[in-house]
Amino acid sequence: MREKFNPHMHEIEISPIVKISEEVRDRAPIFKKEAGKEFILFQRGEIDFKTPEKITGAIKNALDEGKTKYPKAGGEPGPKKSLLEKLEEFNKIKDLDPDNIVLAYGGQEALQLSFQLFAGKKACGFSPIWSVLLENFIPYSGISFSEVPLNEDFSIEYAKLENTIEQSDVFYINNPHNPTGKIFSEEELSQIGEICKKYGVFIISDEAYEHIVFDNKNHVSIASLSELYDYQDIITAFTFSKTFSMTGLRLGYAVSRNKIAVDLIRKADYTQTAGVVTPIQESALVGFSGLVMDEVGERVGELQKRRDVLYEGLQEIKGLEVVKPEGAFYFFPDFSKFVPRDLKGKERDWYIYNLCLENGVAIVPGCCFSKEGYFPDNARLSFSATPPEKIIEGVARIRAFLE
Amino acid sequence: MREKFNPHMHEIEISPIVKISEEVRDRAPIFKKEAGKEFILFQRGEIDFKTPEKITGAIKNALDEGKTKYPKAGGEPGPKKSLLEKLEEFNKIKDLDPDNIVLAYGGQEALQLSFQLFAGKKACGFSPIWSVLLENFIPYSGISFSEVPLNEDFSIEYAKLENTIEQSDVFYINNPHNPTGKIFSEEELSQIGEICKKYGVFIISDEAYEHIVFDNKNHVSIASLSELYDYQDIITAFTFSKTFSMTGLRLGYAVSRNKIAVDLIRKADYTQTAGVVTPIQESALVGFSGLVMDEVGERVGELQKRRDVLYEGLQEIKGLEVVKPEGAFYFFPDFSKFVPRDLKGKERDWYIYNLCLENGVAIVPGCCFSKEGYFPDNARLSFSATPPEKIIEGVARIRAFLE
Repeated sequence: MREKFNPHMHEIEISPIVKISEEVRDRAPIFKKEAGKEFILFQRGEIDFKTPEKITGAIKNALDEGKTKYPKAGGEPGPKKSLLEKLEEFNKIKDLDPDNIVLAYGGQEALQLSFQLFAGKKACGFSPIWSVLLENFIPYSGISFSEVPLNEDFSIEYAKLENTIEQSDVFYINNPHNPTGKIFSEEELSQIGEICKKYGVFIISDEAYEHIVFDNKNHVSIASLSELYDYQDIITAFTFSKTFSMTGLRLGYAVSRNKIAVDLIRKADYTQTAGVVTPIQESALVGFSGLVMDEVGERVGELQKRRDVLYEGLQEIKGLEVVKPEGAFYFFPDFSKFVPRDLKGKERDWYIYNLCLENGVAIVPGCCFSKEGYFPDNARLSFSATPPEKIIEGVARIRAFLE
Repeated sequence: MREKFNPHMHEIEISPIVKISEEVRDRAPIFKKEAGKEFILFQRGEIDFKTPEKITGAIKNALDEGKTKYPKAGGEPGPKKSLLEKLEEFNKIKDLDPDNIVLAYGGQEALQLSFQLFAGKKACGFSPIWSVLLENFIPYSGISFSEVPLNEDFSIEYAKLENTIEQSDVFYINNPHNPTGKIFSEEELSQIGEICKKYGVFIISDEAYEHIVFDNKNHVSIASLSELYDYQDIITAFTFSKTFSMTGLRLGYAVSRNKIAVDLIRKADYTQTAGVVTPIQESALVGFSGLVMDEVGERVGELQKRRDVLYEGLQEIKGLEVVKPEGAFYFFPDFSKFVPRDLKGKERDWYIYNLCLENGVAIVPGCCFSKEGYFPDNARLSFSATPPEKIIEGVARIRAFLE
């Protein structure tokens, strides 16, 4: 049977995080019965806030107005115009026109189509790295991928970076960064950009968490840097999913000064789906209004409170190495002092995960964020859907079995 | 620049029908000014009916209930259950379970993913053939495609068919058929199925127009034939677009007894888009209820009236060869008696189209439905969005310049 089908399709997987959530769903009632307590969920990338009513309202109006017919390939003019305004004002990516942008099904399709542009070629990016990239985009497009590990404190080793970029066709960066919560500084982005430009390597910049930044930090889009203004070969992928808590409404967009790239992505998007659900596109008309962005600001404030609670708790665990996240909604602490030295392979990779699971806590092990074995003793803890009192309880459980 | 990107993406095109619609949009105001009349639009595959309120209502309710979070990969259990019931009752495709079905963005994504399963392999199917298949799915997946022309009366030449299927990995059939309006009879389907089974060739059956059938004819799904019950290798693609006039809401599904194929399509769908917009999936819970299907029945009645008016008009044009469509909403008459014999290439291909355009009528020329040059003097006339009085006017214009 196997040889009948496209081998690339055999290589892709549903995200390990989905599988973890399914395992937790099975374990939770057993844990409840035995320990009398609820599971604490740190594994998810889903946000527990509601989608702003302005957005669901705009979609409902569009449905009432009969906007249920085929969308224009690449996106409707009105939504595109709103996004161009947002790109100019918020991201400082200026002087674009509607041919520089394609609407897509979330950041996911925007990125998948961007990688599809480089099918069969060589890509690289920092490790740890979002699992969907490793498990889905890369094998689906038959790309060979090299990981450039961040240092332990998540800083950049530039020599290694340049060496890898030189041998690649495309460089992927996720900023703010999943799973570390790192925000790449303007200086870091500038150095990365210069290296890519030097070797004529395309940049795919995934800015899904652009609005989830803490301590009044600024998000900087690499495509906005003045020294890269004349460098066409950057595609930036954005999504409504995280900013507006609408992961299930599947709206995102890809932006590039390279109009050939944009046109190819538009045609491929048309091929795959015939375009984005027409009424969903109307979200773009209202999403970036002052009222909705104020609501987003309040939610980011709530996420920052959760981050602070989780940071305080994790810091109190002696031997745990914790870097405080500046954006996104993840911690990626290093548990290596707690992992027995003689463990190898899968036993080592899933050691902390299994301990957590036995104690009613769900996390994602470091091995899900690297194919080359970097950060095996780290784990991702998400605070996107966990209120402060549960965070405190979760950390207490982890501390209890570690210390 | 060109060599930077995946060459398959350079080979795909936005449908020529979209380009025709854009040309018509430019020409219409000029025609209005010069002739004082509106353009008559026979080029579109869009339906002019509104989406049933039960369906938009279900989506609006889901939005109000907060169903805006990540969908389950492959589709939510409730919508899948409704679709399995519909498949059993209407299509007579029985004994399926949720692992036999994947929700997708319209018939389009269901088909694109099905072809992606056979990337790099050999496919075949009847000509004339839906342009999106030729311009998008086939080049995007790097498939080589052989056309088996239907006879002039749209009957099947079985010797040629068997010869081509024998050399292929997968056979594509669209039933009811765009652009001819042909419904393949149970006997034809049975013979086709036996040939595919004999050579172990996969079948992709595109049944987008399953509910658009006239004169109380029955739609028969090839996967429902008793002699193919034990043949796993059939994928059937369905869509809500045509049945419920919701082309812009992008809901469809792929069904197969081959669970490996279904699982691969599910993973590829997850890779491309992370799944179908959660509230849109709720359409499946209400679409096949008696009330909505009664409404669909009334609309099919209206389409049948349009077909009859168009048939009557076209028949009166002496020298035009017309086959009466049994389903879908297209005529594919043969204009060869009106095309000068010395015309060659593009001049011949677009001769009738250009004459129509000059006279305020939009059609799609036969060349859009074949890459191998079959049916060059035919043209597709759609009656999906043209009321009877406009049909009469359009045919009168065509007749005036032909006779």
